Amino acid sequence: MPDVNAPIGVFDSGVGGLTVAKEIMRQLPGESLVYFGDTARVPYGSKSGQTVCKYSRQIVNFLLTKQVKAIVIACNTASALAREELEEMVNIPVVDVVRPGAKMAADDTKNNNIGIIGTESTVKSGIYEQFLHQINPEITVVSKACPLFVPLVEEGLLEDRVTEDIVSRYLHDMKEYRIDTLVLGCTHYPLLRGVIGREMGEDVRLINPAYETAKSLKELLKKENLLASGRAGRTHAYYVSDGVERFVAFADSVLPCRVGNAQVVDIEAY
Amino acid sequence: MPDVNAPIGVFDSGVGGLTVAKEIMRQLPGESLVYFGDTARVPYGSKSGQTVCKYSRQIVNFLLTKQVKAIVIACNTASALAREELEEMVNIPVVDVVRPGAKMAADDTKNNNIGIIGTESTVKSGIYEQFLHQINPEITVVSKACPLFVPLVEEGLLEDRVTEDIVSRYLHDMKEYRIDTLVLGCTHYPLLRGVIGREMGEDVRLINPAYETAKSLKELLKKENLLASGRAGRTHAYYVSDGVERFVAFADSVLPCRVGNAQVVDIEAY
Repeated sequence: MPDVNAPIGVFDSGVGGLTVAKEIMRQLPGESLVYFGDTARVPYGSKSGQTVCKYSRQIVNFLLTKQVKAIVIACNTASALAREELEEMVNIPVVDVVRPGAKMAADDTKNNNIGIIGTESTVKSGIYEQFLHQINPEITVVSKACPLFVPLVEEGLLEDRVTEDIVSRYLHDMKEYRIDTLVLGCTHYPLLRGVIGREMGEDVRLINPAYETAKSLKELLKKENLLASGRAGRTHAYYVSDGVERFVAFADSVLPCRVGNAQVVDIEAY
Repeated sequence: MPDVNAPIGVFDSGVGGLTVAKEIMRQLPGESLVYFGDTARVPYGSKSGQTVCKYSRQIVNFLLTKQVKAIVIACNTASALAREELEEMVNIPVVDVVRPGAKMAADDTKNNNIGIIGTESTVKSGIYEQFLHQINPEITVVSKACPLFVPLVEEGLLEDRVTEDIVSRYLHDMKEYRIDTLVLGCTHYPLLRGVIGREMGEDVRLINPAYETAKSLKELLKKENLLASGRAGRTHAYYVSDGVERFVAFADSVLPCRVGNAQVVDIEAY
């Protein structure tokens, strides 16, 4: 039986998963987090299943050395390609971002036309379609890889005519199919919410899986009697595989608390 | 003394270095190449010196198992951050892409105003400035990181209004400084030559270091009596750390010969 005051391990290919960490901190203010960002090997979205699984296993091995009581895969690509393998690997709860996002979309849609945008590997995996069709076989899913969104976000072009142009091209098909719900299936994409929302119009609901992921985590911890007792102080720790300064600067701009410092981990050794 | 008919090892963070391999095949048609593209850990351009050095060492260790007679660092970022370390590590000739590119620019400029564009890590390293100032301290160097160029190339937007817009923004300062020579300091950039050339105008000479790199390699092999005798048949071999199909498709579109196949290497084990 794990210690209820042990931290929750959260990982992503880089900084995007911090948007999920932020939501966990908001919904579970008593919990401690250990965040790992694989900044040396980012991005995962164009990599093969084999490679993403290997990298995810190494990260989970690292998180286990921190005695985490649960693991959150805060990366859509790793959720799509490595979740099953990671669940078999550990005997603590594993929460991914895809299932909660798919559930929320299925609950919200009125016309059963759902759009999914994500990285190349996430879209290729067909994982969202699979979950959505398990919930309701009558749902039509339109999915589209948007490889330029992450670089545009990382370059800070959140509101820009170039971003508007690219968003408009990528989302053209979604409009043709008259979707009423669009899943932002990559943790970077909520940062483009403004441009994407204007392009799709007010009638299309945008789903950010971070909110639903934190809610799922909360329910799971409750069910497993793993919610922190609140007796121990809450502490967050941050680890990356490269580029501490860059990570800390980004984290400080996203998270409600000051990150202060992060440590570099030789992740290939795990 | 290495075997003159041994292959030349060429490596890059991914597929960009194939433009250098192509130029080597053209200028040294009798030589065999072993190409390694680190497609699992691409891109290097936003990574720290420590990480790029570690990855480069692993790749060189792998190339040495193929009994290469020389090594070409066909990646500007690895050339900038890891060249010295790799030269100390091996006792065979090492050729990088930065020095030949810098030399060519210094030879070509008439007004001593040279522009350098490259990845964030290449530009931050200051390596081009260093070499250019060794050649001629009176040269003024204007450098600019262009992080969106690689994703735009990989998305195939070689001739596009979005690419034109981004090129125009990144190169604005270069025009202000009235450079007459611009080094395309990343192996992906020659693919944007058309747009960059139109933006800079006819009076600015664009330098693609691949040509000069192959020339340097040829001179060095000659000097060291390492040119292939031509008695053994010429063969090229391709290795990657991920995504064989994607690599082969790109390689077949760039190289004059059919690549056919590539093998995946567990590069972290080297």
